[in-house]
Amino acid sequence: MNLLLFEPEDFLPDGTARISGRRLKQLREVIKAAPGKLCKAGILNGGVGCAELLHIDEAEARLRFEAHDAPPEALDVTLLCALPRPLTFVKVLHSATTCGVKKIHFFHSAKVEKSYWQSSKLATEAIREELLLALEQCGDTVLPELFFHRRFRRFVEDEVLGLTPEGALRIFGSPAATAPVPVGAASSSPVVLAVGPEGGFNEFEERLWSDNGFRAVTLGRRILRSEFAVNAFLTVLGVAAAR
Amino acid sequence: MNLLLFEPEDFLPDGTARISGRRLKQLREVIKAAPGKLCKAGILNGGVGCAELLHIDEAEARLRFEAHDAPPEALDVTLLCALPRPLTFVKVLHSATTCGVKKIHFFHSAKVEKSYWQSSKLATEAIREELLLALEQCGDTVLPELFFHRRFRRFVEDEVLGLTPEGALRIFGSPAATAPVPVGAASSSPVVLAVGPEGGFNEFEERLWSDNGFRAVTLGRRILRSEFAVNAFLTVLGVAAAR
Repeated sequence: MNLLLFEPEDFLPDGTARISGRRLKQLREVIKAAPGKLCKAGILNGGVGCAELLHIDEAEARLRFEAHDAPPEALDVTLLCALPRPLTFVKVLHSATTCGVKKIHFFHSAKVEKSYWQSSKLATEAIREELLLALEQCGDTVLPELFFHRRFRRFVEDEVLGLTPEGALRIFGSPAATAPVPVGAASSSPVVLAVGPEGGFNEFEERLWSDNGFRAVTLGRRILRSEFAVNAFLTVLGVAAAR
Repeated sequence: MNLLLFEPEDFLPDGTARISGRRLKQLREVIKAAPGKLCKAGILNGGVGCAELLHIDEAEARLRFEAHDAPPEALDVTLLCALPRPLTFVKVLHSATTCGVKKIHFFHSAKVEKSYWQSSKLATEAIREELLLALEQCGDTVLPELFFHRRFRRFVEDEVLGLTPEGALRIFGSPAATAPVPVGAASSSPVVLAVGPEGGFNEFEERLWSDNGFRAVTLGRRILRSEFAVNAFLTVLGVAAAR
C-alpha cells in the first residue's frame, strides 16, 4: 500500500476518517503504525495528500486527511482485452490500473474459453477490491471503468467506435505484425489498444480489426504472458508522458 | 508453451527426441497433439526450428526436430535486483527471462527480509524449472545465468564493476529521480539496471549506487509492483531493439 485510499463514507461529521477491515489490518500489521504516523493518502476519485493517524485499536483507526494534490495523470489509452483466464484477468486488471488506464473493455473471442465468463473473479465486488488494491499500489485514486462484451463481431463492428474517443490511434497486438508499438503515442493522442487472448486472435478476427480501422503492431519477437504484454504495451505507449 | 524446448539428453542415437513429464503432459492435455503435428521447437542454448510429432502415448512422445534459426536476440541488460519475497522472485525471474535478460544478480539490501533467502524457490532445480517455462513462453532457448549476493555494500563497491560489461550505461530505479529511463538505450550500449526492493533503496543505498557510477532514473510517478516494474524498465530499455 503506497497510498491509503479513503472512501467518502469513511468520513465522520467531525471531518476525521474511520477505517476498519483490510486497511486497518495493513496499518496495524504491515506498517505497524502508531498515533502520529503520517502517510500518503487519497480519497476515492479525488485528490491525494497526507493523513495523520490519530488513534488505532483492534476495531478501527481514526485519521485526519488533507488533500493537496491531484491524482497522477491518467494514461490516455482505452484498453480492449480478450477475456483472460480468471487468475490472469486479475493480473491484467492490476497491470492496466497501475499503468493509469481508466477504461477497460473485456470481450469474447474465438480462443477465449466460455467458462472464463462464469468466474467468481468477475463479480462486481471482487473486481472493485482488485481495483482498489491496484490504486493503492500505484498512488492513484480514480477507479477505472470496466465493460464486458460477449459478442466479438458486434463489439468490433458496431460498438467499439461509439465507445472510444474520436480521432484515437487504433492498434491491435499481433505477433505477425511488422510495425512496432509507437513509443509515447498516448502523450500526443488518445490510443485504443486491443490485446488478444493467449494464442492470439485468429485470422478472421485480425481482419475484422483491420477492416474497422485498427493497425497491427508488435512488441517484438518474444511472446509475453498476457499481464506482461499488457504492461509492456501500456509502458511503451505512455513512456513520453513519464518524462 | 510457445516453443517446445529440447535438452541435449532428450536425443536418441537415431536423432529423434524422446520427452516425458511436464512437456509430454502439455502436448497431450493442452495441445492435444496427434502424430504429424508440427510445432515450434528449440534446443537448450541452441537454435530454434520445427518439430514433428512422430509418436505419443501415456509414457512418452517421440519427435524429430530441425533447427533453422538462431534464438531471438538477447536484451543487452544486466539486471541487478534486490531479492524479492519468494512469490515475487518467481515472477521477476519470469519477467526478466521473457524480456531476454541473460544475467541476473540478486542481492540483499536493507528492506529485504532475511527470511527470503531461505525460500525453497531459490533452490537450483526450482529456478531451472521457472527459467525453462519462461523460455518456452517467449520462444527463446538461452538460459539466463543467476548470481546471488548476500552483502550489499561489498557487492556494490567491490564486485559489481568486475561482474558487468565495461562501458555500460549504469542506472538504478528511484521513485525520487527526475531523469526518465532512457528509451531504447540497450540497443546502443550495454545497460546495467539496478532495481530496489518493495519500499525502495534507503538513502545510504541510493548514495552508494551514485558513488559507484549509477544514475537514478524513474518510470514516472506511479509505483508498480516489482515484477511489473522490472518488465516496464526492460521494455523501455529494449524498445528500439524491437523495431
